Amino acid sequence: MKSLTSSLLLGLVLLLPSQIFASANGGPAAITPEQLQTAKQAWCDGLLLISKTHRDGGDARAVAERVLDGAYNYAAAPVLFKPTLAYGDHTFRLTRESALAYFVGNNPKYPEDSGFALKPWVKAEFKIAGTYIEGPLGITMGHVTLTDSSGKQTTVEKTFVFRRGDDGKLRILLHKSAIPFAPKPA
Amino acid sequence: MKSLTSSLLLGLVLLLPSQIFASANGGPAAITPEQLQTAKQAWCDGLLLISKTHRDGGDARAVAERVLDGAYNYAAAPVLFKPTLAYGDHTFRLTRESALAYFVGNNPKYPEDSGFALKPWVKAEFKIAGTYIEGPLGITMGHVTLTDSSGKQTTVEKTFVFRRGDDGKLRILLHKSAIPFAPKPA
Amino acid sequence: MKSLTSSLLLGLVLLLPSQIFASANGGPAAITPEQLQTAKQAWCDGLLLISKTHRDGGDARAVAERVLDGAYNYAAAPVLFKPTLAYGDHTFRLTRESALAYFVGNNPKYPEDSGFALKPWVKAEFKIAGTYIEGPLGITMGHVTLTDSSGKQTTVEKTFVFRRGDDGKLRILLHKSAIPFAPKPA
Amino acid sequence: MKSLTSSLLLGLVLLLPSQIFASANGGPAAITPEQLQTAKQAWCDGLLLISKTHRDGGDARAVAERVLDGAYNYAAAPVLFKPTLAYGDHTFRLTRESALAYFVGNNPKYPEDSGFALKPWVKAEFKIAGTYIEGPLGITMGHVTLTDSSGKQTTVEKTFVFRRGDDGKLRILLHKSAIPFAPKPA
Repeated sequence: MKSLTSSLLLGLVLLLPSQIFASANGGPAAITPEQLQTAKQAWCDGLLLISKTHRDGGDARAVAERVLDGAYNYAAAPVLFKPTLAYGDHTFRLTRESALAYFVGNNPKYPEDSGFALKPWVKAEFKIAGTYIEGPLGITMGHVTLTDSSGKQTTVEKTFVFRRGDDGKLRILLHKSAIPFAPKPA
Repeated sequence: MKSLTSSLLLGLVLLLPSQIFASANGGPAAITPEQLQTAKQAWCDGLLLISKTHRDGGDARAVAERVLDGAYNYAAAPVLFKPTLAYGDHTFRLTRESALAYFVGNNPKYPEDSGFALKPWVKAEFKIAGTYIEGPLGITMGHVTLTDSSGKQTTVEKTFVFRRGDDGKLRILLHKSAIPFAPKPA
Repeated sequence: MKSLTSSLLLGLVLLLPSQIFASANGGPAAITPEQLQTAKQAWCDGLLLISKTHRDGGDARAVAERVLDGAYNYAAAPVLFKPTLAYGDHTFRLTRESALAYFVGNNPKYPEDSGFALKPWVKAEFKIAGTYIEGPLGITMGHVTLTDSSGKQTTVEKTFVFRRGDDGKLRILLHKSAIPFAPKPA
Repeated sequence: MKSLTSSLLLGLVLLLPSQIFASANGGPAAITPEQLQTAKQAWCDGLLLISKTHRDGGDARAVAERVLDGAYNYAAAPVLFKPTLAYGDHTFRLTRESALAYFVGNNPKYPEDSGFALKPWVKAEFKIAGTYIEGPLGITMGHVTLTDSSGKQTTVEKTFVFRRGDDGKLRILLHKSAIPFAPKPA
């Protein structure tokens, strides 16, 4: 029976360049672990770019807005965002404005925010401990290690839930960051 | 514990008018049977509009393109469309062009198409026999009865699979239409 | 950075034989076009098995029940099933009982059913015109050609929607079958 | 047109008691925010039950196994579990064994685990800051406040991702717990 071959050929013929779901299956392409890696790398790169722009005297706020709008899902829904250093009544940053305040500070509503992304970060590396992918959602849990210009390293635990939009792009709909637990020395 | 109430209130506060997922749950609103009813009605209305435009001497082709682009998922993927009267090598109309040919004819590649939507349809009623909704997909199976200007009725079996886009709109990704089986008289 | 390699290794180590989602991604494995091919083949094989069991004097009804329970989703939900020769008030076979009646007859509630699967089918071939896969649902549209013991061929149009259960198996939740449209000779 | 009413009636008639998807829509019922509340409450209740069983001299380990098997998704996939006090090489507890060690200790592979659920917890309250529901996954982010028998309270940040199984039950596939950030006093 040649139906498999012929249907795959048919699929190729039918897939027009203008169509959004660039998958031979008809529907949206399934999220892959590699895409989750790329999305985490993009988050790291975004943070470094904001920081470098700030050090270079550029418009770090504008870059942060671009990073936020590209990487996070605020345009569609409140994002479940718990940044590392957020606390008290401002622990959760479900709105775009509150997330921007965390990254670049300068918002009188969030006076405790000095701008996490304005610190002199020069390197960001991630390590994934586990993933879970189902339908349009892809989850990672692991660590990110940030290095600042003095060489000091900070490692935080990060949980991300990404959502694949109809445009095929992954956007963060949950981001939980926390300082690792350290037991008290005996 | 007041957490339910407070979290619902929180949801209301956080839901900005500009956000796409207009749901208190954060994510996209689940498809309802009522939305499937509305979507089937919209399909009926679209057919009648093309037909009436043609009778009134208007640009039925332009209307058909608008109906197709609004109701079908061709912009994102090939649509699994089997129109009632399509047959042979042109049984399946997976491309927008082939669907348009079926509705309004006038395409030399599909010489057998005289334009199904150009017939003098004056009434279209649907009856749903069963539905199935899961995630972004909603399915209906049932009948549509079309009445033409002479009062003659035609009933066809129709299966639709609708997909909810990120914009919340339902679009047809599968449409199978068939003349009901009629046993030969004894 | 070695995070990709290490996380893939981690995935392999963590995947225990007893776990249900046999996927390196954590979640259920995405449906593939090949699985849809296999599922359609299984449907064809099931029909042929019922027919052969009947010809051989075996318990065709018991085989039909096994085929139904293995291939269709009746245990979880009403199945949107429109068999080729079903009509009138019994057009749609949403219950298991009504589907069984169609396949092997012998149910006084469905006196018109002579048992479609009891006909002397000796060959069943499918051809897929298009597929659509999203999350737990996989759709195919195409033809099935049945050959009986006299060599006579019957081709029908078939639309299937399969659902992947938590056990990874695909089950039919929609099956629409129709005799192809044939224009009247001029 | 009476199609809406009649199709709803049809749905009621067709829904057999033995069927799993107890939804009038055909498919599985959508997750509700109330179900997420109930699932979080169940987690709290499970913790308190293990603790009370331990205080009462019962088999806390057996209870913990039951709680784990009922509430977590380990039977299907590795769970992305980061318990509050886990650290170092044992930060993530993706296997059932490692989760059990965290709750009731007594596993030489995890010598640092003294049994979090064996502490004298007498009260557990949760507060949800935000939810996100899509398809079979429901997410909550918020706090849990635990009170021990001396009246001392501990509040932790908790992120859960629940998955609805084919049986309609929600199980935890991600659980991230962290001590809230507290800025150093000036």
